Amino acid sequence: MSKQILIMAGDGIGPEIVAEAIKVLDVAKTRFNLDITTDEALVGGAAYDVHGDPLPEESLDKARAADAILFGAIGGPKWDQIERDKRPERGLLRLRSSLGLFANLRPAILFPQLASASTLKPEVVSGLDILIVRELTGGIYFGQPRGIREENGERVGFNTDVYSESEIRRIGKVAFELAMARGKRLCSVDKANVLEVTELWKEVINELAKDYPEVEVSHMYVDNAAMQLVRAPKQFDVLVTGNLFGDILSDEAAMLTGSIGMLPSASLDQDRKGMYEPCHGSAPDIAGKGMANPLATILSLAMLLRYSLERGDVADAIEAAVEAVLEQGLRTADIFADGCRKVSTAEMGDAVAAAL
Amino acid sequence: MSKQILIMAGDGIGPEIVAEAIKVLDVAKTRFNLDITTDEALVGGAAYDVHGDPLPEESLDKARAADAILFGAIGGPKWDQIERDKRPERGLLRLRSSLGLFANLRPAILFPQLASASTLKPEVVSGLDILIVRELTGGIYFGQPRGIREENGERVGFNTDVYSESEIRRIGKVAFELAMARGKRLCSVDKANVLEVTELWKEVINELAKDYPEVEVSHMYVDNAAMQLVRAPKQFDVLVTGNLFGDILSDEAAMLTGSIGMLPSASLDQDRKGMYEPCHGSAPDIAGKGMANPLATILSLAMLLRYSLERGDVADAIEAAVEAVLEQGLRTADIFADGCRKVSTAEMGDAVAAAL
Ligand SMILES: CC(C)[C@H](C(=O)O)[C@@H](O)C(=O)O
Ligand SMILES: CC(C)[C@H](C(=O)O)[C@@H](O)C(=O)O
Repeated sequence: MSKQILIMAGDGIGPEIVAEAIKVLDVAKTRFNLDITTDEALVGGAAYDVHGDPLPEESLDKARAADAILFGAIGGPKWDQIERDKRPERGLLRLRSSLGLFANLRPAILFPQLASASTLKPEVVSGLDILIVRELTGGIYFGQPRGIREENGERVGFNTDVYSESEIRRIGKVAFELAMARGKRLCSVDKANVLEVTELWKEVINELAKDYPEVEVSHMYVDNAAMQLVRAPKQFDVLVTGNLFGDILSDEAAMLTGSIGMLPSASLDQDRKGMYEPCHGSAPDIAGKGMANPLATILSLAMLLRYSLERGDVADAIEAAVEAVLEQGLRTADIFADGCRKVSTAEMGDAVAAAL
Repeated sequence: MSKQILIMAGDGIGPEIVAEAIKVLDVAKTRFNLDITTDEALVGGAAYDVHGDPLPEESLDKARAADAILFGAIGGPKWDQIERDKRPERGLLRLRSSLGLFANLRPAILFPQLASASTLKPEVVSGLDILIVRELTGGIYFGQPRGIREENGERVGFNTDVYSESEIRRIGKVAFELAMARGKRLCSVDKANVLEVTELWKEVINELAKDYPEVEVSHMYVDNAAMQLVRAPKQFDVLVTGNLFGDILSDEAAMLTGSIGMLPSASLDQDRKGMYEPCHGSAPDIAGKGMANPLATILSLAMLLRYSLERGDVADAIEAAVEAVLEQGLRTADIFADGCRKVSTAEMGDAVAAAL
């Protein structure tokens, strides 16, 4: 039966980078004889401009119907001043929540060809391969009550961080399973010495640990984790944490590699249906200039094929094609180094498609 | 009139490192003819062991009466299992809150003598000098309601992040004043695209900015700030943020220097009365071994003299003594490098006292 991929290009560099991933998908379809159809839907500022809504009903319906979603990026200064509920980010948050995409997988991998791009010393990051598992549909991102109210004659802003046992267990299981398939080490990040919500987090992870005796479990306070990622990042295999800490730590971890333009991510639901997107943002400053690095999006496509379409073989081939292109010395501006050949977004996409 | 310093040594390496700072204080008193008296009070696990309370009434009274507090460190595995409200950390949080120590100043400075200790490349961190201003008595650390409750047959953990306009304005002013006295650049860190409490934060900082036309103000999302600290930390002068983001980012920034054993901090109230403590923790694993680095505590004493006792001259002399000792090649284990002389906690304290 034919599989449906929905393309949501979004804003800024979104359309450019997604276009290159589609090139690669087209080649993969031929080479591996894949029965995949694609459709497109508006999201973010692009959707707001047309429909006055960053996630129009039609886009959400298409997302629900698809087997997987390839997402570009959203947001930009153009939409910073519009009312809160209509901003591009809210479209993304609603999409995650409406589709139940609770498990966000963010690898931080150092590509050997790009080792020198890191601001960290080579011995500290060479061979780095961390997987951050971030809870994506709960915590302070979605907690109620929230808002800005008037109190004693002044404004007061408030948000609620909240996790139930079942939410923690659900994401914990994903993390333990992933740790089993990797280095069998799991570090759970909390602030249990201050926040009750993360005290419960820690307890539930410890309960779950009994079902995975082979996994070595540790717990770390979030401030210490932020330090340890800088001090000795290779101590980590899989990290699991809540929505907000995951947002912060996954970006920090990604930057350790020096090439955030290379890092894909997956957001999965209970049945492994997922949305796949580059870790980087919409980079409005370079949008339309043909400078953006499409590799994170192409690698997101590989993750899509592996996790949601169960075609690990095709994913492997795409990843190998990316490595081959890096070996050939092709680099977009963000990862350029002396002795390499600087290429545009489209040239990079063409090269990967050719290598495949 | 005689000034009162209260010494709260706390747990783990706390007593050892504080003892060295007292040595230095004694020499400073003689050399500068200072009229300072000291007293001691229990805090943290040490207080719990004696009084069943990590911040006994007597300790709090002494803290209230003192002109400034020199604090060691608290906590350790010994007290991890006791009931939540009695844990060492809660004593520290109550102390901050009871004394109204809302302004936490955390410098991240790279000592030129220790440049190689950083895991970052020298060109990325050489000359690093960032000041993080963290709000310390509000936000999710103290917000109500909080706890773990039963709901639909399962446990649910929850905390409240909350800031009022006046709380934001108060810490914002401190940050603007400090920026005026430094590089005149202030970056306010929020997650205003998701959290209403930080949307208000951003608004109030922008309102305040009008009173400081000379200060160049920028805003950054916390995930981006965590990245930028790794990518290009020298872009920052002063950072200001809430309690939780400040906890995470200040530890990350401290670790960029590679020598968190060197970094002091100050927690100030409205009248510049303050508590001074090293940025590092109680390091229970090395407690009692004479290995701990006392320099962060000695530099905290310098900050105490500068901010709360208005003796910038004495502070300068102590800081110069620390630099001199580093120049001589003396190093505790945490900052040891080839070609240097490894010294114990007490030898380091003696050397600084002698240099002074
Ligand atoms: C755009 C924003 C709402 C989003 C988040 O905070 O989750 C982004 O930072 C991310 O990590 O995907
Ligand atoms: C010990 C802990 C409660 C404390 C905090 O989170 O504030 C510590 O991490 C710090 O930064 O001083």
